[in-house]
Amino acid sequence: MAKEITNRQDDYSQWYLDIVKKAQLADNSAVRGCMVIKPTGYAIWENMKAQLDKMFKDTGHVNAYFPLFIPKSFLSKEADHVEGFAKECAVVTHHRLMNNPNGSGVVVDPSAKLEEELIVRPTSETIIWNTYRDWIQSYRDLPLLINQWANVVRWEMRTRPFLRTAEFLWQEGHTAHATSEEALEESKLIHEVYARFAEDYMAMPVIKGAKTANERFAGAVETFTIEAMMQDKKALQAGTSHFLGQNFAKAFDVKYLTSENKEEYVWASSWGVSTRLVGGLVMTHSDDEGLVLPPKLAPTQVVIVPIPKPLPELLEKGEEIAKELKAKGISVKIDDDASKRPGFKFAEYEMKGIPVRIGIGPRDLEKGQAEVARRDTKEKTGVRLDGLGQYIEDLLVTIQDNLLNKAKAFRDENTHTVDSYDEFKSVLDEKGGFIMAHWDGTTETELKVKEETKATIRCIPIEGDLSPGECMVTGKPSKQRVIFAKAY
Amino acid sequence: MAKEITNRQDDYSQWYLDIVKKAQLADNSAVRGCMVIKPTGYAIWENMKAQLDKMFKDTGHVNAYFPLFIPKSFLSKEADHVEGFAKECAVVTHHRLMNNPNGSGVVVDPSAKLEEELIVRPTSETIIWNTYRDWIQSYRDLPLLINQWANVVRWEMRTRPFLRTAEFLWQEGHTAHATSEEALEESKLIHEVYARFAEDYMAMPVIKGAKTANERFAGAVETFTIEAMMQDKKALQAGTSHFLGQNFAKAFDVKYLTSENKEEYVWASSWGVSTRLVGGLVMTHSDDEGLVLPPKLAPTQVVIVPIPKPLPELLEKGEEIAKELKAKGISVKIDDDASKRPGFKFAEYEMKGIPVRIGIGPRDLEKGQAEVARRDTKEKTGVRLDGLGQYIEDLLVTIQDNLLNKAKAFRDENTHTVDSYDEFKSVLDEKGGFIMAHWDGTTETELKVKEETKATIRCIPIEGDLSPGECMVTGKPSKQRVIFAKAY
Repeated sequence: MAKEITNRQDDYSQWYLDIVKKAQLADNSAVRGCMVIKPTGYAIWENMKAQLDKMFKDTGHVNAYFPLFIPKSFLSKEADHVEGFAKECAVVTHHRLMNNPNGSGVVVDPSAKLEEELIVRPTSETIIWNTYRDWIQSYRDLPLLINQWANVVRWEMRTRPFLRTAEFLWQEGHTAHATSEEALEESKLIHEVYARFAEDYMAMPVIKGAKTANERFAGAVETFTIEAMMQDKKALQAGTSHFLGQNFAKAFDVKYLTSENKEEYVWASSWGVSTRLVGGLVMTHSDDEGLVLPPKLAPTQVVIVPIPKPLPELLEKGEEIAKELKAKGISVKIDDDASKRPGFKFAEYEMKGIPVRIGIGPRDLEKGQAEVARRDTKEKTGVRLDGLGQYIEDLLVTIQDNLLNKAKAFRDENTHTVDSYDEFKSVLDEKGGFIMAHWDGTTETELKVKEETKATIRCIPIEGDLSPGECMVTGKPSKQRVIFAKAY
Repeated sequence: MAKEITNRQDDYSQWYLDIVKKAQLADNSAVRGCMVIKPTGYAIWENMKAQLDKMFKDTGHVNAYFPLFIPKSFLSKEADHVEGFAKECAVVTHHRLMNNPNGSGVVVDPSAKLEEELIVRPTSETIIWNTYRDWIQSYRDLPLLINQWANVVRWEMRTRPFLRTAEFLWQEGHTAHATSEEALEESKLIHEVYARFAEDYMAMPVIKGAKTANERFAGAVETFTIEAMMQDKKALQAGTSHFLGQNFAKAFDVKYLTSENKEEYVWASSWGVSTRLVGGLVMTHSDDEGLVLPPKLAPTQVVIVPIPKPLPELLEKGEEIAKELKAKGISVKIDDDASKRPGFKFAEYEMKGIPVRIGIGPRDLEKGQAEVARRDTKEKTGVRLDGLGQYIEDLLVTIQDNLLNKAKAFRDENTHTVDSYDEFKSVLDEKGGFIMAHWDGTTETELKVKEETKATIRCIPIEGDLSPGECMVTGKPSKQRVIFAKAY
């Protein structure tokens, strides 16, 4: 079964598609660029969602829901925003179908043309700030700390499951504040929440930084990003948090009365992560045998397999173990399928990325032990049945840590510091990965590098070595090194 | 503040709109027929969702996600379905906007016309069964027990927040089975889950029954429904579960190999409840002072108000009480706002339907007690501080029970049994409510009654008095009494 997966070395892109398919995470659909998220893939997203939702609520946010549709004219109200988002999108022009007068099936009823076209939201700043105008009158109404879990649509030309799809699921936070400082603080707070989620739950190390002006969100004053390295050494932008200044407040005329009774425009932030994270999770940890999942996000953390088949005494012992694990909050599945052989099952659970497999056979029972196999290292260990629960609980923590450390080591190995543009080009060609280099801060230089090498500035890091230098391309002064990479 | 709400007696419909607005459940949006669900309204939906999701998972279902868009041709594949759903809907015809060549703003790019129009899903049977064709080959692939949480769009002409909106949130279950019996069993199981949720969580009593052929879901062989009575004595269809036979399997050519290696069409069920339930919840329990929420679904169950103002010793005691309540899993808010007076706050929390209010003043502290006010009965009681936690925990159960009993008593009082059509008409006119009457089982008679009285058959009950009789209109034999009512 495992051999149905392409090796990473041979074709990384096909390897990813194979895992998505064989681990049953997603399927193509009849609609161009839209995927079907299958139960296993959706369960991973549900786990991400539950944890992120908790983190948002713990930091004072509440959820709400805004309309799917945005009147076309709204998109034009913020000058940069329209350039970024009002292009490839799904446009609703009619509200009725009718029986085909000239044949079978249904056709669009020409008399049901909308006065103004509606756009399926590509992001919701415009419709939300149009609403905030009614919700905000005075400083007492601020801050508004609202998040929305929703689907959005961007008519992407080249799609890939989870990483880039026409429709995707995400959360989008939209907050309103009385001062610039508060709004900036909020966007930094969420930046930190995203980084913490990526490292502590996804076991995916990220670099925190700011986007360059050229890579900023359309309508933002500042965009913070978390950037992760995939196993092909390309960068994945995993989440962004924007300080929007007063841009949307001005576009939608959202003012408030200060405590000194002065009228001022409201300050804003917005931030989002999406089902793209599922793609990032897959690409960070998986191997040539299939999916590898960090225990904290695995829908099933432990599977118990009776060997060679589900004999009653083995199932009984399995139930006993499962009960102990469930009491510890661990999710367990017992495989009682008598129609498949253990070898087949092992390959299947490796494919599906279940972090721990417990095998129990009659011999094991006699010896009072079970065989515990880790998905991450593929190590197998005989473990005494008394104390097995505690062992598994600790092992899940160990696996979670190991995955993060392994990914960190991989990223660090593949992060290079260069001082000249020639060196930059040869490192990019020969090694790839993240390249730390000095840059003069101009869009011109940034675009020149992008055009000549396809590498973009992933971010201006906010931690680590922030000392100044000279631009590798122009020799002009550089405030600090930035990270270049090829990206998804 | 309370006086801003219209009395139910004066204008029931306006009373409902007032509550939705003043309790901050939802707002109108800039898009016709689409509402904004505000944080308080969304928190109620989140609580409903969490409980329903648990009930679905406990009965073996998993979640997945299917595309928002449905190719137009799919809707025509099931003959009844197209009549029911392919009419008033949002039609996507283009995938790009461009800068207006003749002025400002953006316009639809005529060169970006889709080859086939896409419909924003009004319900997902078609796209899902088109997918199931790839997922189902043999009896080993069955049953498929899948649910989806999603937004759907139906271009309704007359809308009302929660009860009928162009876009709404819902869950839709779509299951596939090897036999007719299993699929029917599934639709009955969910019917039961819905009824249990309505009664045990919403405290909203429902009548379980089957829809008549005329009122069935478009494409269903049998539709089961739960019907609730609102305070204006009109019926609300609160949830439906459909046995779809092989209709969608035939339309989308979904066959499986039986264990005897014979090819057969797959059997189906589908079922859904929506944000309409939030409207039902409001209309079942609320009163002229505002929202009344059953404790099990209230986002905040208890509010603690220091009287006359948030003095440090009162806040300290409040924190202590809150801690005790939180340890019992009760959600508590302490009101530390010094800018508003207790009377104003009391009215506000009544408006928002918080089930229990605890008032603590310096005098109370001296006496070692607090004042506990119930939202449902408006009773106030002095309660000893030691034992307050247990008292509140019990009180929440009492309130939940009381709301259900009160709603049940109201429904029973307003359910009438009639034997002649004349009596039917006069009861309907003078008393309203549910009317149990004999019906000959024909669509003809059903439509005649509907046309002449505006009452529809809400359901053919599956419990209670199922004895036969004679149709009140035609005198022909009737298998059992059915329930007529005017409905939302």
